[in-house]
Amino acid sequence: MTRQELIANIRRKKSFLCVGLDTDIQKIPEHLLTEEDPIFAFNKAIIDATAPYCIAYKPNLAFYEAMGVKGWIAFEKTVEYIRSNYPDQFIIADAKRGDIGNTSKLYARTFFETLDVDAVTVAPYMGEDSVTPFLETPLPTSPEGKEKHRQHWVILLALTSNKGSQDFQTRPLSNSPEGEEPSSEKLYERVLRKSQEWADEDQMMYVVGATQGRAFEDIRKIVPNHFLLVPGIGAQGGSLEEVCRYGMTKDCGLIVNSSRAIIYASNGEDFALRAGEEAHKVQQQMAKEIEKLRK
Amino acid sequence: MTRQELIANIRRKKSFLCVGLDTDIQKIPEHLLTEEDPIFAFNKAIIDATAPYCIAYKPNLAFYEAMGVKGWIAFEKTVEYIRSNYPDQFIIADAKRGDIGNTSKLYARTFFETLDVDAVTVAPYMGEDSVTPFLETPLPTSPEGKEKHRQHWVILLALTSNKGSQDFQTRPLSNSPEGEEPSSEKLYERVLRKSQEWADEDQMMYVVGATQGRAFEDIRKIVPNHFLLVPGIGAQGGSLEEVCRYGMTKDCGLIVNSSRAIIYASNGEDFALRAGEEAHKVQQQMAKEIEKLRK
Repeated sequence: MTRQELIANIRRKKSFLCVGLDTDIQKIPEHLLTEEDPIFAFNKAIIDATAPYCIAYKPNLAFYEAMGVKGWIAFEKTVEYIRSNYPDQFIIADAKRGDIGNTSKLYARTFFETLDVDAVTVAPYMGEDSVTPFLETPLPTSPEGKEKHRQHWVILLALTSNKGSQDFQTRPLSNSPEGEEPSSEKLYERVLRKSQEWADEDQMMYVVGATQGRAFEDIRKIVPNHFLLVPGIGAQGGSLEEVCRYGMTKDCGLIVNSSRAIIYASNGEDFALRAGEEAHKVQQQMAKEIEKLRK
Repeated sequence: MTRQELIANIRRKKSFLCVGLDTDIQKIPEHLLTEEDPIFAFNKAIIDATAPYCIAYKPNLAFYEAMGVKGWIAFEKTVEYIRSNYPDQFIIADAKRGDIGNTSKLYARTFFETLDVDAVTVAPYMGEDSVTPFLETPLPTSPEGKEKHRQHWVILLALTSNKGSQDFQTRPLSNSPEGEEPSSEKLYERVLRKSQEWADEDQMMYVVGATQGRAFEDIRKIVPNHFLLVPGIGAQGGSLEEVCRYGMTKDCGLIVNSSRAIIYASNGEDFALRAGEEAHKVQQQMAKEIEKLRK
């Protein structure tokens, strides 16, 4: 999906909600456990119920890998299901990968060719050659032999929502010998600046936790137009209003993720219905923010 | 495996070689492609041929994930095969994972419970709560109901072997407000120091690329006793002799990885034989280094 298509979807659906498919076999409703593939059955119902209210899905790989082969199968089926039934949804593989060049290339092949997602989250610690292979994957060829020109994206970790983000991400760097950067630059600010040499706003987004409040102001000085993927609303305590106040751009520029608060709204037979209602509530809040953009 | 057991294995086998199982379907000998599971067939033959000369195996998850479900099955079978047939081998899942606490906990469950490896490589960018769940996993229970007390390890990325290691890892930090650290501390040095608050040398190792030469001297000032996992020998251009000169401790303190130079020594019918010969050559060099320790 291109940046323009994403922006059009956000405006049309009045939503910038991403539903996080952090599906845990220990948390899904008991009546699903008799299904052949309970994880996929859960995801399918959640997707059908929430699709009108969101513009993206973000399965977190950890939840699927934890179940070994079965989990991997459920993950593949989930991606295919979204792709086939809701082609306007942006699919993010939340994998936080990153390795030396030839290895990152394989991860890129996995997510963009074998699986055909739109975006992968990537960790920046190993630098340029660990990130750029995700930008260079040859575009996949469809089974009909026609080339698909799907735009794919890297979503780079910048300032995360967890407590440990203070250990390294917010550490100030000393003056660069080249004297190019402001003197008080923090590590995550360096990540934001340096990575703009690798890809522009058409192929790169950044993870910024909803718990980071006014740091969004500083971030917008460095990346005024890039989309930010914002986890941490709901269970982790971030505020949607605050994120919008400091982080929104004229094109919205935000994809806000909610996982547990939506997908585990109920663990009874009504789980999908309740997930849809929760997603709808968030979408209604978001619609108000989108309206402000138009004024 | 405990630190003491690892050191005993190294002394007994006069080797600190780790064979990297970066198994790529496009690079394995053609005659294996008719096997039911070519990747596992390749790994099994390589393991049988190299086991006398190494003390560890390191499958890199990227290579397995790139093949989807089939790859995941081959990965599980490979871990089980080593565990059953070569119980004195240290198994490293080279996964470079790291996520918020509850997600890292799931990755830990995958690698230490579902799969029963000894160690996982972890990226430090997200800080303490992204790393410590790998140290806290409840120990697995064997099928017989007897508790296994397998020690598990985190191998944290510190200074990697790739060019991109210069983008962030070697950036100098400015003086800490607490004034605790030396003024010229680099990011990777901060990672080495900070992470010692999370686990000691019995549960933590660090990745330091063989291409980093004399940086090993600085690293040994910060982590004089920790084991270092050293990739980058062979195909990536690092020198074993140099790594030993600057990085070895009285307990060896090194696990040196070689992947492509060993496993792809030949792509004919003699691939396993040639891999064994290459591993043996490296082991003979290592034996000389181990001898020096004893003087």
